[in-house]
Amino acid sequence: MTVLRLPRTIDWQLDHAVLIDQTLLPGELVMLDVFDVDTMIDTIKRLAVRGAPAIGMAGALGVAIAAVIADANHHDVSWVHEQADRLAVARPTAVNLTWAIEAMRPFIDLGREAVIKAATALLDDDVITQKRLGQRGAGLVNELCPGAIAAGGVRMHTHCNAGGLACVEWGTALGVVRALHERGQVKEVFVDETRPLLQGARLTAFELGAMGIPHRVLVDGAGASAIRLGLVDCVIIGADRVAANGDTANKVGSYPLALAAARAGIPFLVAAPESSIDMSTPSGDAIQIEERSADEIHLFNGHRVTPAGSGAWNPAFDVTPADLITAIITDRRVVHLARGERL
Amino acid sequence: MTVLRLPRTIDWQLDHAVLIDQTLLPGELVMLDVFDVDTMIDTIKRLAVRGAPAIGMAGALGVAIAAVIADANHHDVSWVHEQADRLAVARPTAVNLTWAIEAMRPFIDLGREAVIKAATALLDDDVITQKRLGQRGAGLVNELCPGAIAAGGVRMHTHCNAGGLACVEWGTALGVVRALHERGQVKEVFVDETRPLLQGARLTAFELGAMGIPHRVLVDGAGASAIRLGLVDCVIIGADRVAANGDTANKVGSYPLALAAARAGIPFLVAAPESSIDMSTPSGDAIQIEERSADEIHLFNGHRVTPAGSGAWNPAFDVTPADLITAIITDRRVVHLARGERL
Repeated sequence: MTVLRLPRTIDWQLDHAVLIDQTLLPGELVMLDVFDVDTMIDTIKRLAVRGAPAIGMAGALGVAIAAVIADANHHDVSWVHEQADRLAVARPTAVNLTWAIEAMRPFIDLGREAVIKAATALLDDDVITQKRLGQRGAGLVNELCPGAIAAGGVRMHTHCNAGGLACVEWGTALGVVRALHERGQVKEVFVDETRPLLQGARLTAFELGAMGIPHRVLVDGAGASAIRLGLVDCVIIGADRVAANGDTANKVGSYPLALAAARAGIPFLVAAPESSIDMSTPSGDAIQIEERSADEIHLFNGHRVTPAGSGAWNPAFDVTPADLITAIITDRRVVHLARGERL
Repeated sequence: MTVLRLPRTIDWQLDHAVLIDQTLLPGELVMLDVFDVDTMIDTIKRLAVRGAPAIGMAGALGVAIAAVIADANHHDVSWVHEQADRLAVARPTAVNLTWAIEAMRPFIDLGREAVIKAATALLDDDVITQKRLGQRGAGLVNELCPGAIAAGGVRMHTHCNAGGLACVEWGTALGVVRALHERGQVKEVFVDETRPLLQGARLTAFELGAMGIPHRVLVDGAGASAIRLGLVDCVIIGADRVAANGDTANKVGSYPLALAAARAGIPFLVAAPESSIDMSTPSGDAIQIEERSADEIHLFNGHRVTPAGSGAWNPAFDVTPADLITAIITDRRVVHLARGERL
C-alpha cells in the first residue's frame, strides 16, 4: 500500500476555515472553504466535520470566522458571543464543542487578531495533545498485551473513526494504533463499518490504508464475534464525552464491543484528550445522546431499504459503563479503571 | 397499517418449486419458478431463499425437482441421490438443509410421485411446526414477562429474519411475536437492520408491517443500547443450528444482543424447530460458520463504500454460548437452559 500524507482535517487560512468534507471520503478528497457561521454550523450538523476533537476545533474556528465578520462589518463583541452560543449547540453529545468555545470566550473581547491567534493555537495544541496521547497509549498496550507484542504485533479492534479525521491530525484511538505501527507493533486492525454513516468503513479504513496498516472491515454485528473467536488482542475506541465516574459516550456500537471484551478478558481502552472528560456530568445517565434522523437508517445512497411505514430509532451514541473499561488514556495520564483508579 | 396476507415463501406447483425472491423485498414481491437443480442451488447460495427452515424446504423441493427430471429423462435413482448430495452442501451452517434432504432419501427409490408427496408433506409439517412453536413461545413470554404483559404488551427485540420468510409461512422467532400479537400482547418490536444484507430492515420490517405490528428498525450497533436503556422486555432470535450443549449459531450480531440481555437481566430466547437441533454437534466450537464474499461489505447497491485496498471479514453467523440463553423454544418443548435444563 502507498503511504499517503493527508492534509490537516481542519485548518485556518488567513480569514477562513478549510476542512476536509468527510461525507465524500473515501471516494473523493475535497476541501471545503468556510467563510460564515451558518455554513460552519451546517458543516458540523451534516457531519462533513465529525469526531469530538475536530468538532471542538470547528467550533473554535467558527468563533474566529465570527470575529473576522464582526471586524469587517463593525458588529460589536456581543454579536460574536451570540455566534459562539449558536455554534455551541450545533451537536449535543461531544463535550469538546462547548469546551473549545468556552476556551475562546476570553479572547472575543480582544478582537479579531487575538481570536484568530487563540483558535490556531488550539489547533496546534490538538496535534500535540493527540501525539502525546498516542505515545502514552502505545506504552499502555505494550504493558497490557506483552504476549501479542512479543509474537510480532497486536491485533487491534476499533469502532467508528477516532483517527486524524476526528482531530486536526494524528488521532486519538487511531493515534495509539499509529504510534504502535511506527514501532512496528501492529499486526492487523479490525474496524467495524459503523452504521448508519459508515465512518469505520469509509474513514478509518481510508486512514489505515494511507498509513499502510493491514486491516479488515467487518459489519458491526460481527465485532463481538471477532473478539469471542480470539482474533483480537485489544479493543480501543475514542470518546465523545467521558463522565466523572468514567462512563463513556461514544459512537453507537461501542458498548457491545465492551461487553464482548469483558467476557473474553481482553483490554477495552478509551483514548480521549482531557477536553473530552466532563467532570460536571456525574455519570453516563446524565449524558444527552443525540438522536439523528430516521432517514439515515431508511435510506442508503438515496435508495430506500426499509418498507414504507416502518419506524426507526437512530441514536448516534451509546454509553459504555465504567466497569467495562480497562483504562482511559488521555494526553496527560492513564486512568486504570479496572485497577480501581478514578478520574 | 394494512394487514397483508403473503403467499407461502416456498411451495410446490405440479412439477416445480415456486418461491419468493427475497433479494428484491421489500421493493418488489416477485415469485421465482424453479425447474432445475442448478437454479435451486443458486437460489439458496444467493439468498433468494434464506432462513434455516426455508433452506431445508428448498433442499427437499430440489430433490423433488430432481425426481421429476429423472422421471422425464429416464435417469436412475443414483442420479437423484447425486443431486441431493449437491443440494446438501449449498450452504454449510443451517443443519435443516441436511436434515430435510436426509428425510427425502428413503422416498427417492419409490419414484417421482412418492418424492413429491414427501416434499409437500414436509412443507405442510413446517407450517404446523412453526404454529405450535409460536403458541408455545407466546406462553413462555407470558410466563417470563408478566409485568410487561400486564402493562399493555411486551416490547420484543429481534435480529435478522426468523419470520414467515425464513420458513414456509408463519415463522419461528417472529412466529412467537405473531402469536403474541394475535393475543393483543405486543407493544412494539425493535428489529436490527442486520448488515450486510439487511434482512431485518428489509424482510422482518416488511413482515411486521404486513401484520400491522408497530416496529422500529435500528442499526446493529444500537441493539445492545436499546436493551441497556430498558426499551426492550425480551429478545428473541431464530437459529441456524443449535448444538447439543445449547450453543446456538444464528445470524452474525445475535451474540452481542445476548451479552446485553444477560447484563440487563432480560430473557434471551431462541425459537427453532427440532430440526435445527443437531445433537451430533457437541458445542458451538464445532459448528462450521459460513464466510461469505467480502463484496457484501465493500459494496452497497453496487456502490463501493470501503477504500480500494481494504480487506473485509464477513462471517454470516455467530455463536451464542448456552449460558447466555434463557430458554430454547421448539415445536415440541421449552428447554429452560437458565434453569439448568439440557436438550
